[in-house]
Amino acid sequence: MESTCRPRLTPAIADIRRAVRTLLPAEGLVLVGLSGGADSLALAAATAFEAARAGLGAGAVIIDHNLQDGSADVAARAAEIARQLGLDPVLVMSVTVDRDGTGPEAEARTARYAAFDDALEHSGAGGVLLGHTLDDQAETVLLGLARGSGPTSLRGMAARTGPILRPLLGIRRVTTRQFCVDAGLDAWTDPQNFDPRYARVRVRETVLPLLENELGPGIGVALARTAEALREDSDALDELAHIALHKHWANGEITAVALAAQPAAVRQRMIRFGVEEHCGVWLNRGQTLAVAALVTDWHGQGVLSLPGIRVVRQDGVLIFSVPA
Amino acid sequence: MESTCRPRLTPAIADIRRAVRTLLPAEGLVLVGLSGGADSLALAAATAFEAARAGLGAGAVIIDHNLQDGSADVAARAAEIARQLGLDPVLVMSVTVDRDGTGPEAEARTARYAAFDDALEHSGAGGVLLGHTLDDQAETVLLGLARGSGPTSLRGMAARTGPILRPLLGIRRVTTRQFCVDAGLDAWTDPQNFDPRYARVRVRETVLPLLENELGPGIGVALARTAEALREDSDALDELAHIALHKHWANGEITAVALAAQPAAVRQRMIRFGVEEHCGVWLNRGQTLAVAALVTDWHGQGVLSLPGIRVVRQDGVLIFSVPA
Repeated sequence: MESTCRPRLTPAIADIRRAVRTLLPAEGLVLVGLSGGADSLALAAATAFEAARAGLGAGAVIIDHNLQDGSADVAARAAEIARQLGLDPVLVMSVTVDRDGTGPEAEARTARYAAFDDALEHSGAGGVLLGHTLDDQAETVLLGLARGSGPTSLRGMAARTGPILRPLLGIRRVTTRQFCVDAGLDAWTDPQNFDPRYARVRVRETVLPLLENELGPGIGVALARTAEALREDSDALDELAHIALHKHWANGEITAVALAAQPAAVRQRMIRFGVEEHCGVWLNRGQTLAVAALVTDWHGQGVLSLPGIRVVRQDGVLIFSVPA
Repeated sequence: MESTCRPRLTPAIADIRRAVRTLLPAEGLVLVGLSGGADSLALAAATAFEAARAGLGAGAVIIDHNLQDGSADVAARAAEIARQLGLDPVLVMSVTVDRDGTGPEAEARTARYAAFDDALEHSGAGGVLLGHTLDDQAETVLLGLARGSGPTSLRGMAARTGPILRPLLGIRRVTTRQFCVDAGLDAWTDPQNFDPRYARVRVRETVLPLLENELGPGIGVALARTAEALREDSDALDELAHIALHKHWANGEITAVALAAQPAAVRQRMIRFGVEEHCGVWLNRGQTLAVAALVTDWHGQGVLSLPGIRVVRQDGVLIFSVPA
């Protein structure tokens, strides 16, 4: 079937194959995370082609979240397409989504990524390729902005996070749809993609179109480009903070001088990472700034009590402790 | 008039006075940039009060941009209010806006800030206070995102840039309006604030309300908070890049090793700042990455020709030159 039905090389197919080629590992086996939607279907087809050409193994992993009626059928159909594309192995993972209170999208995501880990271990594959596009990246940045959790939330998704690879972050969603048309692939449309109860759906269907209309059609590309640059910035600062922290933090203590010597962006990360790593507490920006004020605005403050952590400055040293 | 008509201390008046107090210099004279709109009027009244209490001088500078019919009358009325508030001196600067092709908002801004410089010199004042609010900051961040010029454009406005002070960046616009109501001040409404030809007006009137509606009412605060954190991040990286640049750049040359030793965020700033300072050319992100590839993806490339600049790597050294 592969040789007789091979699609002709259209621009959409060429673009997506090139994007996959750039991120494929040099050897071993990779899996494609396949939902059956246009993004992951185009990714699966392009990966099957490029892996065969490079002498790599390529399989598929299909997650049945068990959240919608008929989800097992959707998964079975995706598995059938994966086999037709020549992917091997084809793993269907049926998962149970824990309602841990983080919201339906985050809960499904947690279950999905845990299943990817299992699939990697089970198959011995070196990585899982996911079909997130430039449009997904723009949506992620806007959702992060709305949460206001600062630079961290604007980083968007990385092309490479451990074994997770996202070759399509520079590809528009319209291109994956065109790939499927060009290649004669019948993509599944997830009804949840149009459910306005999801913030991501509202961003996609309402917010981004309005932004394009009011501010210019380049907003999707602009958001994705911004995420890339912000990711570099925060990676660099995170690294500097970790280096300084490991040099100066000992037994829940760090000198005010060591913190004062750093620019604000590094100082605040040192406080945040130190408390997170050594006390298991995550400080928000306001709490972090309150700790930093023991250095930047020192006027003999007493003990600073924050949720899960107490900080006091004594003889020029900040002492962190977890209340009993 | 001040003593007989002194307004009672409402929450809006207290908030804005406190914000002004935090940013007032310790001595000398300050000017308030006054348009007569609610933001700058509240700022002017709060500054007059706080400066008198702190024994500082406080004057006003009013810019007549000569762009609308009747602009001289609006300026004269603002000057009259400034005098009633007890501000002294009251400077009215009539400016000519150069059509330099950067767009009507940027052109008016250039003329305005040049006039602030003149006013500072003329009056001997140490600073100009401007009435930009948290809402202005949120609009600036969204406009920057739409331009896609990366982290730099998301920094928003600084509370302090040389002699320019912005005490109200943490204050909502609704609070400045309430201040004027509480204090019995009659604010002027600029018709340009509703002209949808301006991108900023579209952001204010259409984009932000939709974002609040779709993503939650906290978006304005979230955008402003994000700008603050991003400003710290890019300040820290800018400083690191300048330090490394001054150590390693000489006569239009820098070694590949010096650039390779830095994280991507610092390396790219070194390239951008070096070319800007020494060759007078501003590189965009794509061009900067092309130069960086001579270090990060070296495979014997030839001369790299960019607009206004040529770069070549020879014997491990990047050599920058300006074509004749």
